[in-house]
Formats: sequence, C-alpha cells, structure tokens
Amino acid sequence: MISFAILGCGRIGRMHARNIKAHPRAELVGVYDVVAKAADEVAAELGSRVLGSVDEALNDPKIDAVFIASSTDTHVDLITRSAKAGKAVLCEKPIDLDIARVEACWTEIGKLDPLVMIGFNRRFDPSFKALRDRIQGGELGRLEQVVITSRDPAPPPVQYVKGSGGLFRDMTIHDFDMARYLAGDIVEVQAMGGNLIDPGIKEVGDIDAAMIVMRAASGALVHINNSRRCSYGYDQRVEAFGEKGMLQAHNRRATTVEAWGAEGTQARDPVLNFFIERYFEAYMAEINHFVDCVEKHEKPLAGFPEGREALRLADAALESLNTGRSVRLDG
Amino acid sequence: MISFAILGCGRIGRMHARNIKAHPRAELVGVYDVVAKAADEVAAELGSRVLGSVDEALNDPKIDAVFIASSTDTHVDLITRSAKAGKAVLCEKPIDLDIARVEACWTEIGKLDPLVMIGFNRRFDPSFKALRDRIQGGELGRLEQVVITSRDPAPPPVQYVKGSGGLFRDMTIHDFDMARYLAGDIVEVQAMGGNLIDPGIKEVGDIDAAMIVMRAASGALVHINNSRRCSYGYDQRVEAFGEKGMLQAHNRRATTVEAWGAEGTQARDPVLNFFIERYFEAYMAEINHFVDCVEKHEKPLAGFPEGREALRLADAALESLNTGRSVRLDG
Amino acid sequence: MISFAILGCGRIGRMHARNIKAHPRAELVGVYDVVAKAADEVAAELGSRVLGSVDEALNDPKIDAVFIASSTDTHVDLITRSAKAGKAVLCEKPIDLDIARVEACWTEIGKLDPLVMIGFNRRFDPSFKALRDRIQGGELGRLEQVVITSRDPAPPPVQYVKGSGGLFRDMTIHDFDMARYLAGDIVEVQAMGGNLIDPGIKEVGDIDAAMIVMRAASGALVHINNSRRCSYGYDQRVEAFGEKGMLQAHNRRATTVEAWGAEGTQARDPVLNFFIERYFEAYMAEINHFVDCVEKHEKPLAGFPEGREALRLADAALESLNTGRSVRLDG
Amino acid sequence: MISFAILGCGRIGRMHARNIKAHPRAELVGVYDVVAKAADEVAAELGSRVLGSVDEALNDPKIDAVFIASSTDTHVDLITRSAKAGKAVLCEKPIDLDIARVEACWTEIGKLDPLVMIGFNRRFDPSFKALRDRIQGGELGRLEQVVITSRDPAPPPVQYVKGSGGLFRDMTIHDFDMARYLAGDIVEVQAMGGNLIDPGIKEVGDIDAAMIVMRAASGALVHINNSRRCSYGYDQRVEAFGEKGMLQAHNRRATTVEAWGAEGTQARDPVLNFFIERYFEAYMAEINHFVDCVEKHEKPLAGFPEGREALRLADAALESLNTGRSVRLDG
Repeated sequence: MISFAILGCGRIGRMHARNIKAHPRAELVGVYDVVAKAADEVAAELGSRVLGSVDEALNDPKIDAVFIASSTDTHVDLITRSAKAGKAVLCEKPIDLDIARVEACWTEIGKLDPLVMIGFNRRFDPSFKALRDRIQGGELGRLEQVVITSRDPAPPPVQYVKGSGGLFRDMTIHDFDMARYLAGDIVEVQAMGGNLIDPGIKEVGDIDAAMIVMRAASGALVHINNSRRCSYGYDQRVEAFGEKGMLQAHNRRATTVEAWGAEGTQARDPVLNFFIERYFEAYMAEINHFVDCVEKHEKPLAGFPEGREALRLADAALESLNTGRSVRLDG
Repeated sequence: MISFAILGCGRIGRMHARNIKAHPRAELVGVYDVVAKAADEVAAELGSRVLGSVDEALNDPKIDAVFIASSTDTHVDLITRSAKAGKAVLCEKPIDLDIARVEACWTEIGKLDPLVMIGFNRRFDPSFKALRDRIQGGELGRLEQVVITSRDPAPPPVQYVKGSGGLFRDMTIHDFDMARYLAGDIVEVQAMGGNLIDPGIKEVGDIDAAMIVMRAASGALVHINNSRRCSYGYDQRVEAFGEKGMLQAHNRRATTVEAWGAEGTQARDPVLNFFIERYFEAYMAEINHFVDCVEKHEKPLAGFPEGREALRLADAALESLNTGRSVRLDG
Repeated sequence: MISFAILGCGRIGRMHARNIKAHPRAELVGVYDVVAKAADEVAAELGSRVLGSVDEALNDPKIDAVFIASSTDTHVDLITRSAKAGKAVLCEKPIDLDIARVEACWTEIGKLDPLVMIGFNRRFDPSFKALRDRIQGGELGRLEQVVITSRDPAPPPVQYVKGSGGLFRDMTIHDFDMARYLAGDIVEVQAMGGNLIDPGIKEVGDIDAAMIVMRAASGALVHINNSRRCSYGYDQRVEAFGEKGMLQAHNRRATTVEAWGAEGTQARDPVLNFFIERYFEAYMAEINHFVDCVEKHEKPLAGFPEGREALRLADAALESLNTGRSVRLDG
Repeated sequence: MISFAILGCGRIGRMHARNIKAHPRAELVGVYDVVAKAADEVAAELGSRVLGSVDEALNDPKIDAVFIASSTDTHVDLITRSAKAGKAVLCEKPIDLDIARVEACWTEIGKLDPLVMIGFNRRFDPSFKALRDRIQGGELGRLEQVVITSRDPAPPPVQYVKGSGGLFRDMTIHDFDMARYLAGDIVEVQAMGGNLIDPGIKEVGDIDAAMIVMRAASGALVHINNSRRCSYGYDQRVEAFGEKGMLQAHNRRATTVEAWGAEGTQARDPVLNFFIERYFEAYMAEINHFVDCVEKHEKPLAGFPEGREALRLADAALESLNTGRSVRLDG
C-alpha cells in the first residue's frame, strides 16, 4: 500500500485524489492547498486529512509519495524539495515553462536518482499504449510516419493563455511527448502557426492553430496539427505508418450508437468533450503505473527527462515559428 | 461476339440494352416491345434495329440469345418459345407467379437442356459474391447463420402491389435466392408479416413488412427482414456467421465522405437509393456471366431451377404466414 | 446511504459486492453464502462482515436492501422472505425456471407492493439505453423492426446446460427482456433452433443456436438470433428500425485501434469477450438505478413483472420450437 | 458530339481513349504515337484511325480537341501547337518540369485565350469533389485546416525517378493541386523529406517520403504527407477541418465486405491499389467536364494556370527542403 499526499486541490488535483482513493494499493493520507477551502473539500469528500503545509507532508515518514497538482510555477520548487525529502514524485505537466529552470532542477536533484514521474496521461491511454506496444512489437516494420491530431473543444480564456507559456508549451507539449513516445528522439522541428479562432489570443501574442513537422533520430517523420477549437468534441487521434502497415487510434464516444436517416447514415455521437472523461482510463492507468514503479523501484514511462525533452521541443517549435527556419536539436 | 435481341423495352429492358451495348463481347442486334414507341426509342438511342415480332427474333439464325425483360405474365411463354428455337435465354425474375406454370414450363423444355438464366442480379454484386466465395473457400468454417436485411426505399403504387403476387413473390424472391446462394437448399420456413406502412397495401390483401426464419439442409439458420419503406435509402445487407468468424456485406454510397459536427460524427451519405444505381456493377457482371456461359456452354449461376426454387420458398412463406405453422419443403 | 447484504458470493455476487462498495451512496454491511469460504473471501477483500444466515440479514433493521446472487433455485424463496421482511430486493435473473412458481411468488408478495428489481443488466448498458431513450423520444417515428444479435463467446459445460432450463430460459431470457424494453409487450412468438456446435448439448435435450421472430402489441416485428459460440468475442448488438430511420448499438472493444495491412484494412480488436467486462458500465448503472429507486421509492426499470414476462416468452418460444406453430400470448 | 484525337498511346493514353469512346457525346477520330505499334493497337481495339503525324490531327478541321498523353517533355510543344491550331486541349499533368518553359508557353499562347485543361483527375473524384462543394456551400464555416494523405502503393523504378523531376514535381504535384482546389491560393511552404524506402532513389538525388506544411492566403493551414510505398494499397485521403465541423474523404475498396474473426473484427479489403481503378470514376468525370467546357465554351476547373501553380508549389517545396527555410510565394 503506497501512501500519498496531494499538493494542490484544484480540478485536476481533485480528480487525482479520487483516483488514488479508488486504487486498491494506494491510500490518500493527506491533502494540501494554499487555498484552505479547496483542501477542506477534498478531505471531506474522500475521508482524508488536511495538511497544514507542504513540509508537513515532506516530513511525514509515513508518506511515500507526493502528487504535485499545484500551479505550474510551483512545480520546480516542489519537485526539488520532495526529491530531497526522499519522496516519490508524480507531477502534473509541464515541469516549468522555462527550460533553464528545468535544467537547473535536474542538475540539483538528478544525482539523487529520484523517482520523478511527469503526468503525461496520454501515454497511458489504452489505445495509444496499444499503438506503441504494437509498433515496438514489430507489426509495422520500420516506423516511417506519425500523424498526431490534437484539437481542444474550445479555447481557454485569454487571461489563461497569457500566462500559459503559449500554445506549444501549454497544449502541444502533450503531442511533443506523444511524438517521442511513438517515434523516439526528435532531431529537427519545423512549425507554422495561425490565428484563426480568437483575436484575443493574437493580442496576447499567441497562436490558436498550428501545424508542425519533425524528424526523429530514426528517420521517421512526424506531423502534429493543433486547434484551440473543435466543434465535434476533443479530437485526439494518432496514426502510425510503417513499412508493413498502419495503425490508427481513434476518438472515444459515450456510446456505440449509429444513427441512420434521410440526412445521413452511420452517424455516431460527438466525441467525448472533456479531457477528464476522454482520458478517464488513462488517468487511472497513470496512477497504477506510478504505484507499480514505487513498489518495484522501477523507472516510470514518463520521467523527468521526458518532461524536459517535451519542453525543448516546444521551444524549438517556437523558434521555428519565429524564424521560419527548420530547427535542429542536439542528441 | 454474342448477338442479343431484347424482348421488352421498359425501364429495366432499356438498362439491360445499354449494358449489352457496352459489353465488349456482346452486340444488340434487335429490340422488341408490344409498345412500338418503346422499342423505337431504345433502337434509336443504341443504334439497334426494331424487330416486328418475337418470331422475327426467334427465327433469325444470327441471334444467339434473347433477353426477356417483358412483363412477368409473358415470361413462361417467351422462355418456352425461345428455348425451343434454340436460343440462349436470360430472363428477368420471377419466372412466373404460379408455381404450377413454372413446373409445367420446365417439364416441357427441361429435356432440351436449354441455357436459361434467371436475372437474380444480386448474385453478381461484388460484395455478395465475395461473401459466397469466401464462405465456400472455408473462411467461416461451417456456416451457421445468415441474416439478410432487404428494405426498399419506398412502397410501390398499390395498383402495382395488387398484381405483384404479394411481397414474398415480388420482393422477397430476391432474398430467398440470396439465402439459397449462400446457405444452399432450404428445408423449413417460418414467416411473420405486418402492415406497418401503407393501409392501401393491406386493402389489396398484402403485407408491407416481414420477418422470416428458415433452416437450410446444411443445418444453417437464415433470417430475412423486409420493409417496403426505408428512410435512408435502399438497405441491402447480408451477414454470414460461422464457426470461425463472420462476414458482412454492407450498403453502398455515392461517396466515401464522413461528416463530423456538433450533432454527430462520422456521418456518411444516405445509401444508394435506386436499385439500378445500387446494383450497377451487378447488372454488368450478370450480362458478363451470361455471355461467358453462352460462349463456353456452361451452366449459369442462376438457372431455371434457381428461379423455381425461389418461388417455392415464397409459396412456403405465404403458407406459413397464413397458417402460423412452420412449413417443411421436400428436398 | 443504502445498506446492502449480499446473498451469494460466487463470481457474479463478488462482482456486485465490489460495485456496491464502489458506489458513493451504498455500503456493503454483510455477505452470506452457503459455502462459508466464499463469503469469507468477499468479506476479507471488501472489509465487510460475514453473516451467519439469511435470517441474520433479514432481521437486521440496519439493512435496507438484499442483493440475491445465489443459485436460481433459491431465488423465489429468498425474494419471498426478503419482501416479507420489508427489504428492497435486487435479484439476479431469472426469477425461476418454472413459470408456475414465479406466478405463485407474485401472488404471495405482490400485494405487499415490494421493491423487487431483476438483474436485467443490459437495460443499463449506455448504448442500449440510448437506443431506448431515442426511440421513445420519437427519433424513429413509429418503431417497425428490431433485430437483436446475441452470441456467447463459448458454450457452457454440458453439465451446466443440463440444469439451465434450456437456451431460451438461460440465455435468450436477456434478449426477450431487451425485446420488451425496446418494443413493449409481445403478443406472438415463432422459434427455430438448431444443434450446430456441441453434440453434448443435443444429448441433454437442448439447442445451441436459435432464430426467433416475434410480434409486439404495437405491431413491431422483432428478430433474435442466438449462438452459444462466437469466435470474435461476445457479440451483443441491437438494431431498431422505424418510419424515419434506424439506430444501431454495436459491440464494445478494449481500444479504438484500427490496423491496416496487406491482408486487410481498418481491422479492429476482437470484441470484449467476457460479460463482466462487456457490461461493466451497465452493472454499475444497474446498482445506481436500484439505489435511486430505494432512495426515492420509485419503481425499477426492470421489476418482478419484467422477470415474469421474459420467462413467459421463453416458454412460448419453447412451445413454438416443439410444435412448429406460432404461439400467441394473451395481453 | 466532340471529336478527339489522342496524342500518345501508352498506358494512360489508352485508358483515356477508352473513356472517350465510352462517352455519349465524344468520338475518337484518330490516334497518334511516335511508336506506330502503340497507335495501331489502340486504333484496332477501339475502331479508330491511326494518324500519320501530329500535324495530321492539328490540320484536320473535323477534330475539335486533342488529348495530350505523350511524355512530359513533349507537352509544352504540343500544347502550343494545338492551341495555335485552335484545338481545345486536354493535357496530362505536369505541363513541364521547368517553370520557365511553362511560363514561356503561357506567354506565347495565353493571349489566344485557348481552352487548355490539365489532367488533375483527383478534382473529379466524387468524394473529393463533394468535399469541395460542401466546403464552398458553407458546411464547415471558415476552413481552417486541410490534411492530405497521399501514398503510392510501390516506388517506381529508379530509372523513372531519375527523369521524373523529383517527388514534389512528379507525385506531390497532385497534392499541391488538391491543396489549391480545397484551400485556394498558397502563400507559404515548408517541407521536410526523407529516404526511408529505396536507397536507389537516394542515389539519384531524390527523396521517397515527405511531409509538407503550407499556409493559404485565406489563413488555412495545409498538411501533405507522402510515401512512395504503402503496404495496404494506394492511400488517398483528405480531411478538411473548419469552424463548424470536419469532412473526411476516405479510400475506396472493391467490396463493402467486413470480416470478423479471432484475430480482428470489421476488417475491410485492402484499398484499391492501382490509380486507374482508384480514380476510374474521376477519369470518366474529367472527360465529361472537358466535353462540357468545349460545348459551352467555359473555363475548365483545372486550366493551364492550375498546372503552373502546382509546379510553382513543387519548386517552392524543393527550395524549402534544400534550405530548411519557409518559402513565401508572391500572390
């Protein structure tokens, strides 16, 4: 049984708190939030204890693991302190918006060989995971092309966008990680962006649509397309093409119903709209993988280096967007 | 090059005339219709000759084959005369509405071993044919169940229904033949019918919806469902289920387009609505098969016996409908 | 918070015990099984209490509801005693294999107006439920035809079949209920059966494949096809066809992956094979509906009468199978 | 009735000759090829006349139109001479591999306002055409993203690649035109290429896989992915994404059959493998559109400027590939 403290009781922290509680080999021993009310609510709902401070969690020898679900600007500090306190860490993405801070963090804690896992939940989606397993099992022969479609249902408030680090660091970061998950290390990035949806996003200097092409060290080519708006739901698809065939992972819906009528046939439901619903199984599997890693002292599928590399790709894409040049990354 | 005369220049005769003209190894040397204007039009369109009478066709030694596309009540007479004249015969379904006349016809001409093919076009549909070929190739192991869905876009005029011989002889006749095509000889029939669409059809003593269950000599069970109306087009599907798997043949559409929107996703076109469009490739392949049989003196996939057996199944279904009893057929 | 006792801790009882434990407004206060070891295991796993007898549950005023998951031959006795003890009852299907005992049970307890729900889990499948809701919402106009495909992955042991009451009472019972759920009361039944899979099943006097056609009081026609074996998984589909369109509910799979290769394209996973996996969401929703009914004193979607009617249809189908006659049911 | 001469009787010329012959308002009055045997064969098959020279066609006042299906290096000369002779011209793509020659050709003949159509057959594919019509009809609202997947079944011989002008001018040229067909004028191009399939292609200085991103004047972003090899057939898909929804055009197959078994479910046929089969309907519709344009003196959907613009995009993509820079095109 692995004992968790949750640091951060916002929407996503609350979801993780419930998943930890539901896990047969995990228990939620404490919750913390700078907003006391948020922590109180989660503790009440799940029968857990409110922690008075981060240190109360880090100093408690009965707590094995901390789940960092607080705001992005606190991640580096909390990862560092938790790792030094000998806790296993599961931290929501991104590690930070500034690659220099990320590098510095790793310089400081890397030598401790801490168990740090970054919440790239999509790696645990059953369909994307099946894609990876089947690619690695050789079903496609050599992997040649990956096409990642990733479109959010609706743009976030401009105020959020302003502090988000921009589309690439905030939204595409998941797709950069998916690219690496399927195709391995990336060595070259080209990006094109547009403002097609919300003029307010342009005003704060960000884009709301993008198309990216990348080259993997293996030679495989990868395409990502992003949109901050999608009328039919949260569009999350991956296509992997190789020498011997193709594997596609498609969207998820609430039912299997198909409707036939004079206007159209085989019409299915809109796709699941909300990320917590769409990735419900993935979030459960993510916790489960982390618990496994803590129990068995194994490296997580998405560790600190994965968080850092995804941010490096976001930075490279931004440089390409700004310069119109293809950007090469060192190995 | 096989020389054809067409007897009957209505809608379906005209379609076949065009297909014969387009066939690389067939030529249309004459056309006949009791309505002279109909024959004139087809001859003019296709550069063929108007025949003054049926005998003109039957006495012409340069004519190899006749295509009988006249009204059902003329079929037996024309098949008989054509067979006696030594012509190869391709006759639209059904042979006749009266099984006694059909039996008598065969008694008279069977001994001549004529080449008579009945226009069960669906046997030549590429998808249904692939189903049969794959079943016979062993892909399903033992065939256990067949489900035939067959729904017309809209009911015919009541006046037509009145003289049609009823749903089973007019519409289901194709499905009975499909059942035999896939599952072989049928030994038992149960039928249930309903009046769900057009009260006028009830008034003339017919049904407009039906569900049938049959047992093949092989043991396989077969279900047919029929409707005289279908809002989304001409619904023509077949499912074959066996020991090792299942094969389904689906509807056809004008394009491969799928539409995604807030109301529904992956919505495809309505299915092809008009039987000539839906079975376009099948009608071409039907002519081609007949030309092959004439050239090679081979038995057609759907000969006179197939026409007779489908009618016997229609009669058995009608008996079951009227008596509420399962009807057994002798081998 | 509704307090449950579980009577019967076999495979299905254990699953329900877990679902009750996971439900936010239910608690599992006791478990009982004639095999003490089974009860011990469930109690240990879920932190519940082992009950020494059925009466211990029925006499405990703190227990609101009993879940009857014991063998079929105990159902009538346990329903009767539980109803008399004033407990809400959720009982696995079927109520009994003998319609006379079922009728007698209802004669005895019906006047108490007990809350008895029968475990027709498929009514709670999100896709089948959406079908029903959309039919009732008028999307199809008049409902004209229903096609239910229901094929088990593999036949049960012959020993089980022997005491099962036969295919119709054991397996088709779910499909009879689905027919009533979608099309309402049934007034006529025709059935055909076959022995296509396991000769041992024939030896004990049962069939292993069936096709049934029924007429609803509304006029709608319903087809059910059953097989005790299905190579590609647990095949559970429903098609509802009406005046204005068609709705289909399809099978469920573990992932959304489609594979493309030289042998075939868009190939999906085998369908979920195990009923507990296939109907996972349905079993959760079933408990939830029951809890709702207990809390709000409402009639369940599937009450005692639904259990009785499904059994009457099974008996009618058996009569049709044995006599070759269409069997009519009184209203 | 429009009278055609065909110049060039290779594989593709022969196909077009057959389509012209089958067209109800076109006739094939003469065929020419530098290889006399090729012309003889086509003339014999289709009952047409062999022309002794190109001039024999251009000087014949009874010939309305010439179809140029000879090798690429002859196109500019034949277009120029035909236009000057007052013939309507339908010329296979590309106009030429050298943009300067293409520009010079247009400088010479543009003032004659000739009817010149370029054989971008995909514009006439029923599904791609439906996509365009529905986009222009407003179904998507503003068009924001286009994803074009275009993969050939197998790489051509290296000898062919050597003289082909390279992947972008030889193969992607169709996709550049599709991009313009759906999204309008293109103003910016980024390209990345790879050698993943045939080392011989690398040796002659070409690539065999590519990913391209473009920006349309409208702001829409367009992605093209290409491969010279595709195990499951000729992969030709288009996705158009907009404000209000998405439209996808999918691959075509020989049948509608889906196979279900222990290994996989709903497996469809490999996609049509051969471009003449895949675009059969498109080639017929292309001839039909040209005949319409000649009869009605209308501008074709794909005129000389479309041929030139597609080549400019190929050149821009090549420049981006070679420089690693985003290339901007003047309006």
